[in-house]
Amino acid sequence: MKSIYKTTISRHRPDRKVEVEDQLAVEEPMEIQLSYGPENDRTQQSISITMRTPGHDFELAVGFLYTEGILSKKEEVRHIRYAETWFGEISENTVLVELEPYVEVDLERLKRHFYTTSSCGVCGKASINAVHNLDLPKINSKQPIVAASVLVQLPDILRQSQQLFQDTGGIHAAGLFAPSGQLVFSREDVGRHNAVDKVVGTALQQGILPLEDSLILVSGRASFELIQKSLKAGIPMLAAVGAPSSLALQLAQTYGMTLVGFLKKEQFNVYCGEWRLST
Amino acid sequence: MKSIYKTTISRHRPDRKVEVEDQLAVEEPMEIQLSYGPENDRTQQSISITMRTPGHDFELAVGFLYTEGILSKKEEVRHIRYAETWFGEISENTVLVELEPYVEVDLERLKRHFYTTSSCGVCGKASINAVHNLDLPKINSKQPIVAASVLVQLPDILRQSQQLFQDTGGIHAAGLFAPSGQLVFSREDVGRHNAVDKVVGTALQQGILPLEDSLILVSGRASFELIQKSLKAGIPMLAAVGAPSSLALQLAQTYGMTLVGFLKKEQFNVYCGEWRLST
Repeated sequence: MKSIYKTTISRHRPDRKVEVEDQLAVEEPMEIQLSYGPENDRTQQSISITMRTPGHDFELAVGFLYTEGILSKKEEVRHIRYAETWFGEISENTVLVELEPYVEVDLERLKRHFYTTSSCGVCGKASINAVHNLDLPKINSKQPIVAASVLVQLPDILRQSQQLFQDTGGIHAAGLFAPSGQLVFSREDVGRHNAVDKVVGTALQQGILPLEDSLILVSGRASFELIQKSLKAGIPMLAAVGAPSSLALQLAQTYGMTLVGFLKKEQFNVYCGEWRLST
Repeated sequence: MKSIYKTTISRHRPDRKVEVEDQLAVEEPMEIQLSYGPENDRTQQSISITMRTPGHDFELAVGFLYTEGILSKKEEVRHIRYAETWFGEISENTVLVELEPYVEVDLERLKRHFYTTSSCGVCGKASINAVHNLDLPKINSKQPIVAASVLVQLPDILRQSQQLFQDTGGIHAAGLFAPSGQLVFSREDVGRHNAVDKVVGTALQQGILPLEDSLILVSGRASFELIQKSLKAGIPMLAAVGAPSSLALQLAQTYGMTLVGFLKKEQFNVYCGEWRLST
C-alpha cells in the first residue's frame, strides 16, 4: 500500500494561481487483530483501529501492543501477517498478530491508562499512577549523556531522514538517536503516537529493548501519551520540536526522564532531568 | 481549573543558559458521563475519556456528543454539570451530561466510525461510507463565498485570539469565521479534535447549528476526523495552516466541502471546492 496520494491542486500565490500536481500523506484506518489462547481454543479479536499512514504496519502493531502493556517481548509473537477479509482477500489495513499459546492476555490493560481503580476520580495524578501498571523498565539514571552541541543538530538529521515529509510537507516523525547524535532509525506517520509506536515496535523486533542508552526526538509537541510510550520502551530522554504539556512534564519528572522542548538549530529548553546534558 | 501550568525551566541559547519561569499548556484527562433513559429508570454511564486542556469543558462534552451522533440538538440536554467523586467532592475532570428522558441513546454509534458493517474489511472507503450514518446536515453548495484576500488574513486573526498560545507557545486552536473574515469565536486545546469539538459544542449551545454560512480554520494539519466533525456541524469550508491527509481530502470531496491547506499570510493551496473562493 502506498504512503503517498497524488492529486491536482490549485496553488494560490500573491501574483498568480497555478494548477499543479501535489502529494499528500496517506491516512487510512488500520485494525489490529489479536489471536491468542491455548492451541485448541484460540480467540481472535479486533482490539484497535487507528488512523495511520501505511508503512511499517507490523512494527506499528507490535509497538502498540508493547506500549499498551499487552506484549512484553518479541518471542511472545508467533506470527504477524495481514488478515483476510470475509471475501478471502488480503486486506493491508488489518494486521493479525498471533501470540504464542503460553502468553496470557489481559485486555483490561487496553482500557485507557487514565482510568483509576481508586475511585477517587479522574485526574492527572491518577493518570501518572496508572502508568505504574505498565511494568516500566528501570530508567537508567546515568545514561545517556548528550552534548548540547549534538542535541541542536538532531532536528536537521531527523528532517533529512523524513522521505514522506519531503514529499508531502505534512507528516509527523519520531527518531531514535544514540547519545553521539547518530540516527538509529526514524519512522513517519500522520499520527504522532503512531510514529512513536513504529519506533518502539521496530526496536522490539530488533531485540534492542529497553532502549536505555538512547534518546527519542519527536517532530511535534510532547504529550502525556508520547512520554508514557517512551518510558515503556525504557528511553531516558525525549526531545520535542514543540512544547510539552503540563502532564507530559509531570510524568517525565516522576520517572526521572530528561525532557527537552522547542528544540531548534541553536536553542532549546530543558524542562527536567538536565543532568543528562553536557555543555 | 487552570489552563496554564507554571514551572521553572532551563533555557539554552547559543551564548548562555538561564533559569526562567515558563508556562505550559495544561493537559488533564476529562471523562464524559452520560445520564439517560426514562425518568424512573435512568442509566449513568462513562462513555469517553480524553486528554484535554481545561476550559469550555461543557462545550467540549456536548460538542463531542454531537459530532459523534449521540446528541442532535441542545434541547435534548436537560442539565450539564461537573460530577461528584465517590467521596462526594466535585471533580472538574468529570462532566455529567443529563439527557431528557425522551432521547434515545445509541451508544453503538460511539464505536469508531471506520468500522464497517459490510464485512468487506477496514479501509478508507468504508470510513467515508460510515460518515453517512452520522445524519449529516446538507452542505450548502453556494455558501460561503470567501475572498482570497480575506482568507490569507485569517491565521493572524486566529493567532491573536489565542490567549493560551501566546502564554505557552504550544496549543492547537480552531476558529469559526464568517465569510467576511470576522471571527465568530475560537477555542484552544492540546488536542486538535477537542478544539473543533469545543467550537461545535459552543455553536450547539448558542443554537446556531448547522453552520452553513461559515468556515472553520484549524491551527495544524487537516485529518479525516476534523473534516468529519466539521461536516457534522454543517460547515462547508475548512482551512488548515498545515497539510491535509489523503482521507481528509477524499471525505471533503465526497460531501462537496471546500478544503484549503498550507494557509499563510500570502498563499494557500485549494484541494477541492474552489468555487467558494472569489479572487
